[in-house]
Amino acid sequence: MSSVPSIQPSHRAENAARQYFHQLANGLTLVAEKVESVRSAAMVLLVPAGASTDPAEALGSSNILADWIMRGAGNRDNRALADYLDSLGVQRSCGAETVFMRFSASMLSRNLPAALEVYADIVQRAQLPEPGFSPARDLAMQQIDAIEDEPSQKLNLMLRARHLPEPFGRSVIGQREHLAALKPDALRQDYQRRFNPRGAILSVAGDIDFQVLRDHVEKHFSAWRAQPVLQPTLRPAPRGLQHLDQQTNQMQIGLAYDTVCESDPRSLLAQMAVGVLSGGMGARLFSEIREKQGLCYAVHAGYMSLKKPGPGVVIGYAGTVPERAQKTLDSFLVELHRLQRGVTSDELERTRIGMKSRVIMQGESSASRAGAIAADYHYYGRTRTLDELRSGIEAVSLTDINNFLAANPPGAITVVTIGPAKIAVSETASGG
Amino acid sequence: MSSVPSIQPSHRAENAARQYFHQLANGLTLVAEKVESVRSAAMVLLVPAGASTDPAEALGSSNILADWIMRGAGNRDNRALADYLDSLGVQRSCGAETVFMRFSASMLSRNLPAALEVYADIVQRAQLPEPGFSPARDLAMQQIDAIEDEPSQKLNLMLRARHLPEPFGRSVIGQREHLAALKPDALRQDYQRRFNPRGAILSVAGDIDFQVLRDHVEKHFSAWRAQPVLQPTLRPAPRGLQHLDQQTNQMQIGLAYDTVCESDPRSLLAQMAVGVLSGGMGARLFSEIREKQGLCYAVHAGYMSLKKPGPGVVIGYAGTVPERAQKTLDSFLVELHRLQRGVTSDELERTRIGMKSRVIMQGESSASRAGAIAADYHYYGRTRTLDELRSGIEAVSLTDINNFLAANPPGAITVVTIGPAKIAVSETASGG
Repeated sequence: MSSVPSIQPSHRAENAARQYFHQLANGLTLVAEKVESVRSAAMVLLVPAGASTDPAEALGSSNILADWIMRGAGNRDNRALADYLDSLGVQRSCGAETVFMRFSASMLSRNLPAALEVYADIVQRAQLPEPGFSPARDLAMQQIDAIEDEPSQKLNLMLRARHLPEPFGRSVIGQREHLAALKPDALRQDYQRRFNPRGAILSVAGDIDFQVLRDHVEKHFSAWRAQPVLQPTLRPAPRGLQHLDQQTNQMQIGLAYDTVCESDPRSLLAQMAVGVLSGGMGARLFSEIREKQGLCYAVHAGYMSLKKPGPGVVIGYAGTVPERAQKTLDSFLVELHRLQRGVTSDELERTRIGMKSRVIMQGESSASRAGAIAADYHYYGRTRTLDELRSGIEAVSLTDINNFLAANPPGAITVVTIGPAKIAVSETASGG
Repeated sequence: MSSVPSIQPSHRAENAARQYFHQLANGLTLVAEKVESVRSAAMVLLVPAGASTDPAEALGSSNILADWIMRGAGNRDNRALADYLDSLGVQRSCGAETVFMRFSASMLSRNLPAALEVYADIVQRAQLPEPGFSPARDLAMQQIDAIEDEPSQKLNLMLRARHLPEPFGRSVIGQREHLAALKPDALRQDYQRRFNPRGAILSVAGDIDFQVLRDHVEKHFSAWRAQPVLQPTLRPAPRGLQHLDQQTNQMQIGLAYDTVCESDPRSLLAQMAVGVLSGGMGARLFSEIREKQGLCYAVHAGYMSLKKPGPGVVIGYAGTVPERAQKTLDSFLVELHRLQRGVTSDELERTRIGMKSRVIMQGESSASRAGAIAADYHYYGRTRTLDELRSGIEAVSLTDINNFLAANPPGAITVVTIGPAKIAVSETASGG
């Protein structure tokens, strides 16, 4: 893979955001955006070593690795690594997600070069010290226990597992018996195999000089050795209905159905429709289910997507008391199906304004922009400027969105519930 | 109370933040900060109508009011109010806290004047419509139920009630039987009495022209009628030890002890000491309890304060499996008491850098600054510039902090636990 020249957009965006792209010979992609008049810089490093790449007999191993990997890298041991990043004022987190292991860091821009060198050590020369393995594993096992005390989190994991194809429906926390059987050496080899610059994305936004950044990244990341890319084998999810009986006070209700994926040109229409459903206090779910009927305290919907070919998924959540659970679910399904009949011009305008405001406000935050352009590159293979996002939102007409909704009604809806009451999904409501 | 002239700092802060102050004749205080080169504006409106001002027989009424009050104001009914704010792209929240009812809103600065007019309606001319009362109350009751499913949240409420003097230890969610007995008319009168410009703080940060803002606020808020200020009667908290037996997987452990309050000149020392304890991954709690001993997944400490005369409080939290709960608590107490022997120069420097970085990064966010200067005014009676915060942090010497720690060891420590295992607090550890 050869080095691709940097791209500089020919026009200067209104908010003066300038974007850059550079790919190293080993496949690591660097994307960056200059945010004017901030002194901070934010970094997001996505390594294709998330839970979906866990070996079938070691589910949850990426979650252990996300802890173990921070326990020393290069010539710094556990303590020295933490102290050094603290001494640079780096606010940071590291966690396994489904697709990626995500490293996030925010700092004053003058400390970015030193921080990048540390992350170059972490992805290439993690120490993975023997004494650190057992605490890292114990902590991962505690997460499995803790989920049992958090029914809304547990619902989210169950819904994903029920709706998304394996391995993308996997929960990051994995399986206790797999973690118990895991050996340090196996995880060390796994680190070598999975920490791959091919498919990795390094994203930086804020007060940056791109030429300097690019040279610095070349210097410290170019020796990172490319590995064969792992291609997951997809298996369909069970979907349908699932109820877990649990003696909680609240019923947890989760719903999911497929729509177009993020890189589909129609995904903005799908996302705006979700905005009409759940984008503000005047949005349909809040207004109809919470305010008018007072059925539940928390009710919302969101859009998420797997990479092409998808699916994109609309995910809904409601938490309520057992005696109102049936009515809540019924009303939620009514709202999902009512979307098919279209949205009003007022609803579209409110959603449009809300989305545009968020785009502009997120443009003021280095951390938001670093996360956004990393996601852009993952889904689209390129970054999108704030101007592009805004004109896309401005261009959507009522006809566009209503034609889309009429042509794309919710198909079969996956419904997962946790709590003391078993509730039914009517044939008509579930689209069957 | 007469109008006080606006103050403009004589020097231009390095980050070009300019601060302003204006008090209306009715007592409402307006504080503002110009944040350069953003297009957003953020507003925080604090009204002295939090749970601590709930009538003794109506605990939780501010929580109902926080919902009911958004259901129509001025000439806009529930639906029109929500739709109008959505059409302005206002991202917002409203919630009861202990001292204040907090209204937060972020938007593009060009929509700030229109949004302020809406909030002027809300605090002076809320419709509090009859049909909205029952859903608002039902939702508040659901929060009481939902807390039972969230042991870590429940621990936090119990710890505050156990440690802070009444009425500041009250939980916002209140009591079910009080809510059940509450009548709409009583809450309407309560709104008139508690929604008081005296003691209220309106804070705005972002892309603002202060002269225009001040005139606009005068125009729309000056008719807000001042009420007598409510002075709460303080009652000491029970403190000591409390255990709630519950069949959860995790043990929840909370600790609290008094320190100097926010407006005390030494509070920065107390906050930096908490930073050494819990300010980063190299900080003592994370490093000793989580990383070295692998005792628990989550462990942290923070500083909070009541207004002068306080107290300020250090609050600690750990969640762990029952069989490690005793060791976790013991180790936590060891760390609290070890602080008394001082921090190292390296620890101080890392904490200093972390705090300075956060100050500078928060200076880039309108919403952070609006919240920060509102809190400043509450605690200090004036706002503090980023420059002032930074020089304060730079000025702390190792001698300053270590003398403070030696002279202010933790006194009696309140310990609250939830879970299946009862654990003991040793006499020496608890400072008894």
